[in-house]
Amino acid sequence: MTRPGEAKVKTTLSQEGETAQPRPSSPTTTCHPAPSFKPEVSVPSVGPIVWSRAWDSALVLLLLLLPPLPPQPATMTDGTRSDVGRWGGSSWQPSITPSPEPEPDIRSRGSGRSFWARCCSCCSCRGADDDWGPEPAGPRGSGSRGSGRPGSRGSGSRGSGRPGSRGSGVNAAGDGVIRDGMLVVTGVDLMSRRSDQNRREHHTEEYEYDDLIIRRGQPFLLTVSLSRPYSSSDRMAVELLIGTNPEIGKGTHVIIPVGKGGSGGWKAQVIKSDGQHVDLKVHVSSNAIVGKFRFTVRTRTDAGEFQMPFDPRNEIYILFNPWCPDDPVYVDHEDWRQEYVLNESGRIYYGTEAQIGERTWNYGQFDHGVLDACLYILDRRGMPYAGRGDPVSVSRVISAMVNSLDDNGVLIGNWSGDYSRGTNPSAWVGSVEILLSYLRTGYSVPYGQCWVFAGVTTTVLRCLGIATRTVTNYNSAHDTDTSLTMDIYFDENMKPLEHLNHDSVWNFHVWNDCWMKRSDLPSGFDGWQVVDATPQETSSGIFCCGPCSVESIKNGLVYMKYDTPFIFAEVNSDKVYWQRQDDGSFKIVYVEEKAIGTLICTKAVGSNMREDITHIYKHPEGSDAERKAVETAAAHGSKPNVYATRDSAEDVSVQVETQDAVMGQDLLVNVVLTNRGGSQRTVKLHLYLSVTFYTGVTGPVFKDSKKEVALSPGSSESVALPVAYSEYRPHLVDQGAMLLNVSGHVKENGQVLAKQHTFRLRTPDLSLTVLGAAVVGQETEVQIIFRNPLPVTLTKVVFRLEGSGLQRPKVLNVGDIGGNETVTLRQTFVPVRAGRRQLIASLDSPQLSQVHGVIEVDVAPAPGGGFLSSGRGSSRSGENVPMAPRGGA
Amino acid sequence: MTRPGEAKVKTTLSQEGETAQPRPSSPTTTCHPAPSFKPEVSVPSVGPIVWSRAWDSALVLLLLLLPPLPPQPATMTDGTRSDVGRWGGSSWQPSITPSPEPEPDIRSRGSGRSFWARCCSCCSCRGADDDWGPEPAGPRGSGSRGSGRPGSRGSGSRGSGRPGSRGSGVNAAGDGVIRDGMLVVTGVDLMSRRSDQNRREHHTEEYEYDDLIIRRGQPFLLTVSLSRPYSSSDRMAVELLIGTNPEIGKGTHVIIPVGKGGSGGWKAQVIKSDGQHVDLKVHVSSNAIVGKFRFTVRTRTDAGEFQMPFDPRNEIYILFNPWCPDDPVYVDHEDWRQEYVLNESGRIYYGTEAQIGERTWNYGQFDHGVLDACLYILDRRGMPYAGRGDPVSVSRVISAMVNSLDDNGVLIGNWSGDYSRGTNPSAWVGSVEILLSYLRTGYSVPYGQCWVFAGVTTTVLRCLGIATRTVTNYNSAHDTDTSLTMDIYFDENMKPLEHLNHDSVWNFHVWNDCWMKRSDLPSGFDGWQVVDATPQETSSGIFCCGPCSVESIKNGLVYMKYDTPFIFAEVNSDKVYWQRQDDGSFKIVYVEEKAIGTLICTKAVGSNMREDITHIYKHPEGSDAERKAVETAAAHGSKPNVYATRDSAEDVSVQVETQDAVMGQDLLVNVVLTNRGGSQRTVKLHLYLSVTFYTGVTGPVFKDSKKEVALSPGSSESVALPVAYSEYRPHLVDQGAMLLNVSGHVKENGQVLAKQHTFRLRTPDLSLTVLGAAVVGQETEVQIIFRNPLPVTLTKVVFRLEGSGLQRPKVLNVGDIGGNETVTLRQTFVPVRAGRRQLIASLDSPQLSQVHGVIEVDVAPAPGGGFLSSGRGSSRSGENVPMAPRGGA
Repeated sequence: MTRPGEAKVKTTLSQEGETAQPRPSSPTTTCHPAPSFKPEVSVPSVGPIVWSRAWDSALVLLLLLLPPLPPQPATMTDGTRSDVGRWGGSSWQPSITPSPEPEPDIRSRGSGRSFWARCCSCCSCRGADDDWGPEPAGPRGSGSRGSGRPGSRGSGSRGSGRPGSRGSGVNAAGDGVIRDGMLVVTGVDLMSRRSDQNRREHHTEEYEYDDLIIRRGQPFLLTVSLSRPYSSSDRMAVELLIGTNPEIGKGTHVIIPVGKGGSGGWKAQVIKSDGQHVDLKVHVSSNAIVGKFRFTVRTRTDAGEFQMPFDPRNEIYILFNPWCPDDPVYVDHEDWRQEYVLNESGRIYYGTEAQIGERTWNYGQFDHGVLDACLYILDRRGMPYAGRGDPVSVSRVISAMVNSLDDNGVLIGNWSGDYSRGTNPSAWVGSVEILLSYLRTGYSVPYGQCWVFAGVTTTVLRCLGIATRTVTNYNSAHDTDTSLTMDIYFDENMKPLEHLNHDSVWNFHVWNDCWMKRSDLPSGFDGWQVVDATPQETSSGIFCCGPCSVESIKNGLVYMKYDTPFIFAEVNSDKVYWQRQDDGSFKIVYVEEKAIGTLICTKAVGSNMREDITHIYKHPEGSDAERKAVETAAAHGSKPNVYATRDSAEDVSVQVETQDAVMGQDLLVNVVLTNRGGSQRTVKLHLYLSVTFYTGVTGPVFKDSKKEVALSPGSSESVALPVAYSEYRPHLVDQGAMLLNVSGHVKENGQVLAKQHTFRLRTPDLSLTVLGAAVVGQETEVQIIFRNPLPVTLTKVVFRLEGSGLQRPKVLNVGDIGGNETVTLRQTFVPVRAGRRQLIASLDSPQLSQVHGVIEVDVAPAPGGGFLSSGRGSSRSGENVPMAPRGGA
Repeated sequence: MTRPGEAKVKTTLSQEGETAQPRPSSPTTTCHPAPSFKPEVSVPSVGPIVWSRAWDSALVLLLLLLPPLPPQPATMTDGTRSDVGRWGGSSWQPSITPSPEPEPDIRSRGSGRSFWARCCSCCSCRGADDDWGPEPAGPRGSGSRGSGRPGSRGSGSRGSGRPGSRGSGVNAAGDGVIRDGMLVVTGVDLMSRRSDQNRREHHTEEYEYDDLIIRRGQPFLLTVSLSRPYSSSDRMAVELLIGTNPEIGKGTHVIIPVGKGGSGGWKAQVIKSDGQHVDLKVHVSSNAIVGKFRFTVRTRTDAGEFQMPFDPRNEIYILFNPWCPDDPVYVDHEDWRQEYVLNESGRIYYGTEAQIGERTWNYGQFDHGVLDACLYILDRRGMPYAGRGDPVSVSRVISAMVNSLDDNGVLIGNWSGDYSRGTNPSAWVGSVEILLSYLRTGYSVPYGQCWVFAGVTTTVLRCLGIATRTVTNYNSAHDTDTSLTMDIYFDENMKPLEHLNHDSVWNFHVWNDCWMKRSDLPSGFDGWQVVDATPQETSSGIFCCGPCSVESIKNGLVYMKYDTPFIFAEVNSDKVYWQRQDDGSFKIVYVEEKAIGTLICTKAVGSNMREDITHIYKHPEGSDAERKAVETAAAHGSKPNVYATRDSAEDVSVQVETQDAVMGQDLLVNVVLTNRGGSQRTVKLHLYLSVTFYTGVTGPVFKDSKKEVALSPGSSESVALPVAYSEYRPHLVDQGAMLLNVSGHVKENGQVLAKQHTFRLRTPDLSLTVLGAAVVGQETEVQIIFRNPLPVTLTKVVFRLEGSGLQRPKVLNVGDIGGNETVTLRQTFVPVRAGRRQLIASLDSPQLSQVHGVIEVDVAPAPGGGFLSSGRGSSRSGENVPMAPRGGA
């Protein structure tokens, strides 16, 4: 069988078209074909070591990766508290003089009389009790304390050394002896395959896992196999445990007695008892903690107690449930759930408001390993398990952890323009490569910018079961939560003081909306909540943002947690133009009140259309409600006292038009002045053109122009500024955006003109074609055509390819592409899941980035029909790429 | 002159009393006298290198101390953004192909035509303008861009290489040439000495600095010396700058034209013009940023512009102002300001509610170096300067930074009982040693527990000018913000399952109240705000807590930011007793609703009395308001659904009495049972005694007792549990606290009895006597007497001594002290400030800690009278202990 994307990779590259510059070598040798793919950047081998690291060594990693505290803190031995709170399983250790003498109760500690003693680190393992009759000396009767401690490095095999699974997994019964009459659990079937009823009814059949993945607030079925038929006098309990110190009161140890009604929404009933098989229906509390639980069944008869040993194959993932009305993440509409929870790809908008760019992003929340990566993120933060049932806390932690600041989170932000030590943020095509790299290595991944942070956040929250979308805000204010203003500085001649633009308006900013009830707030704030994982400066310098109710943003209720002042400022600030005065002080000469948050949009439900959602963030401009919102926010923020009065009439208006500018070609900018008044006007106009990052950080002015324009009453005049490719080429930065500063004044009345106009140079798309039909398990081929729009050679060209269900993340280094050259690349892949899917590609080189392409692929089911699901657990058994063995072909 | 605490240290140690155990060597050789004081733990030499590190290298340290991100992020060159937001002075850098060709506007960039070009990195330095006439080629005309970048390590001398001070400090005029007719500023007198009017009127005369330290919202005076008399046509501006990228709109660059009215509360007026001296009165905005500003004066005449060079001696500290009604930190009562802002010491309460312990803490907010340490803390967090005028943000950042988690803050928490790699939290006597160590080394200081975190927080906030007090909450719930319950687990026999107590009730917890308006909240939440710097687990795993309005805690308004659910739970949780059932599940058998937050207290204003402030945190028990508060909180939290009904009568009550237990002696515990009902009752009583940390973490039960007690109607019976020293000695942990678990059930009606009683063993005090009169600048001597209460030898005994204005932090290693031995220690010191002051001492050894003593010392002014203030700047000039040279004697 062929493992997709790994073996039998066949890539051909042919070149056509005009080579504008001489190229030293032939295309086929320059554009390295398949053999040059670096193993370390191709599909990660996600074998058992990777997974066991995730499970067993997450805590070890945590400790290892902690910043060294140079006067070393106290050794973190089992449970002692050196820096309480985080990773501190704070069980007791004698501190000064450990007593050598046996104390009355210490004697019994290690000898675990009842079977409860084998369960976990909680409730009964270490404290013995007197009630459970005479106790034979078990084989594991001593010294269990101190073993299995959190932070002990696992051997690499699953199931041993896992924190909290102390004493399990070796034998079954509590005392190691199976006596006659005991009700022995010989096996359990959790019906966890993708095609099984549990997975389908819980809407988790797309997760590329063979484990049981369920959503809370909903029942699941299981079959328990027993050593003898079940009788009414037998007592049985189903148990779920999570974390290093499972505890009843914290919801991290759940004991569900079968047939006894249950508590807190947990319940287990016998559905059918058929000989030695008992079918159970287990109701999961809608408040359950979200994460991966260990699972066991206990029985009790007069002969004694039996506990089924923990088995990694029986671990259960519990997720949030947008289908459950009792779950705070409940979503009312099925089409919303299909889009915001289950859709594995989506569009992200960028560029400028006038030139909206869009790209397809592979969220890939169901790809094998992604769910584990999401849970690993919570572990890395040291998020207490008790908080993991609360979507407010979970989304807040994710907003903190998707960026690397404070906590060595997933992605390192970089806006420097130099990405040579990592991946250009524009080059990513989805979240899967990033999340798997973080899970595999434990290191923060270089580099992200806002849409990458937001894309990864969407993946993580959808994966955990919270309806989430990626949202773009055009003309986004930045770092301004203390002032509600964006300040732009000009000299006496209204020439921009470019070096001050460092916290200027971002052309666009991307964040997330996620849907949940806000039981932590007064009523009225349920629904969409903003989380923003991009690390920006808040006034307190803490790098997490949200969840913040969109409703509170809309109404300026900036005192509603979390971080509302910051997000309100992002969409509602004023743009304030300062001019330097003769005496060196600065004066406000112009305030642009509607220039920020001009368009907020996201991908529409069920289509690839763009949906304008500005109205859910902002009341209509000029409405009473809008005015009230801004006033409310200003009252609780620190809006500067009063703006200087603008002391002149404003009868001349200015507009900027740019034709569709294309990267590599000359372009033309037109500034149109209109005299709306009744008198003759003379405008002294200055134009200053510079390149700009999408963050509004600009380079030096590389072209400027001064003109005096006479305007008769009611007339318009146009001033053209032509810009040759050779003029802008040396200055280009990320994403080819440019900033035109228009300023000037009207001679007759002193009116000050000021406008900033951003536009960007279009980059070419990649053209993707699938050659042949796409069928699950069958190899097919995609062709990618790219034409270099620049007259210069692109060096170190890297293609990326990713598409959930189609192609694991793939990185192709193809070397140089000559000036104006056209190249064709072919790549085989083996779809693993049926349905309409997106295959996404990008190209990156130091000379050109932001080149993308996507193709929609309808994947037919495997000829055999049904789900592809291999034998249980085989995906963990060896060196296979996790999803590969499931191919039924 | 003698420098106090450093030179001429004379320590004598005499021993008296019973030596219960044979000691191998004579007292004088075992208790190492003075020569054994380790230099590295005695008064730090805070010379110029330390200070320049603090100023110039704070950013470097930040970068150096960041956790390494293994695939290295992009190099942080000047202003490029690798991880935006923090330390990112994000001025622009060409990214790909820096253009070699001169652009029209680039030509003028480096040549700085106007004097504005020399000011800072902002506003005008790099952008040239056309208005300022012909420009001679200055000596510094090129290449200024890229120098002075943030993060460049200073050479160690102050004033050079400081971020943002680019181009200053070498010459005066903007173009380096002083022309005839220019108005040259030849000097400035800020009147910054401690005895000067400015310092006195701003209530900053106690700060051991000779710099100008002022409070915002209040004017200060200065005298400008000029090269010629000031004329009405001269223009002059006073400027203040802070941070690496000073900016008008952010308040980090303040330009105050003299005589022009000013803006935003800033104003400068000529008070007197007398020949070449001009006296100015400068009003400081009540919204000013708090921190250390660079200062300059500019003049402009027809002949040209002149800027006074930056001089480190002219830097100005601006603080919050509790005396200013416009400042959000305004405090209405002078006695409160005296206590909560100016008092340099205070009491901290610990122990248990029944046995309240108190100790004196040296806050030392005015000690030399402490103010710098406080500002360094904000820098280490990377707190944006624009947020540093807001007491809400500042106190929040302090709560995050006083603990080391997340951010390598001041103190490493350690509750393990093993403090051998640092200082036992009980051994600190004040904040000064801790803060100076953090400032000096940049490393987090080992170790803190809650009162240390709170003590340091009080110091920092008082030092910055926010009224703050240290508050103790007895029976404080811990880590429970998701549930509002503290769970205690018992087995079937109601024996405590001790290993689950790891997040049990803390005997006491110490945090801070600080006073401010909450303009970020709706009205009604001004006044005391809780901040808690002890790192505890919140549900989102983020380690800062507060500010949180006490009013919102009182009323259960847990949705009011910040972190109200957490603090509400600390004072209002229920104690829930769980009993393991036959089927292995747990059942709630008892709920103690009034056991948490039973007493909240702080030191009273103006005396050393304890003030009960429970009523400001909680409505009276049983009142409607109280019930409503808990209901409100529960509605927005996740209080567990419904408690199991308690299904029995409760006519037997239980009380515990302990006599005054003394460390090293036998003790007796009495349990009193009372039958309040009308029928005979038989109680099966279990007593379990264990040692406990103050955090409620307990050791194993080392003594237990079972009794059956018959109670006739209305009668009481007492059950005694005697405990010998030899029984508890091997188990003792920090602070000698013990936990008695009382449980049992009433045979007749099944009533469950449960009570946890904590008590502590009293430790001896140190007895301090000052031998002779205390006069500023004159050496005097303190005698410390200690009697070892234990029959065993104390090893590695360390004394600590600290008292602001009296004695810089001092650590004395005195070796062993024999069993039951009495030792006397003498230590000289030289008071530096007059007034009533506290000298505080502690003793620590592995065998015994929590031993304290304090003496109040009335220091008379120096015979010469007035303030001690040496020549300007001499405290920075060399290797002197900062405050030493000020001694006038």
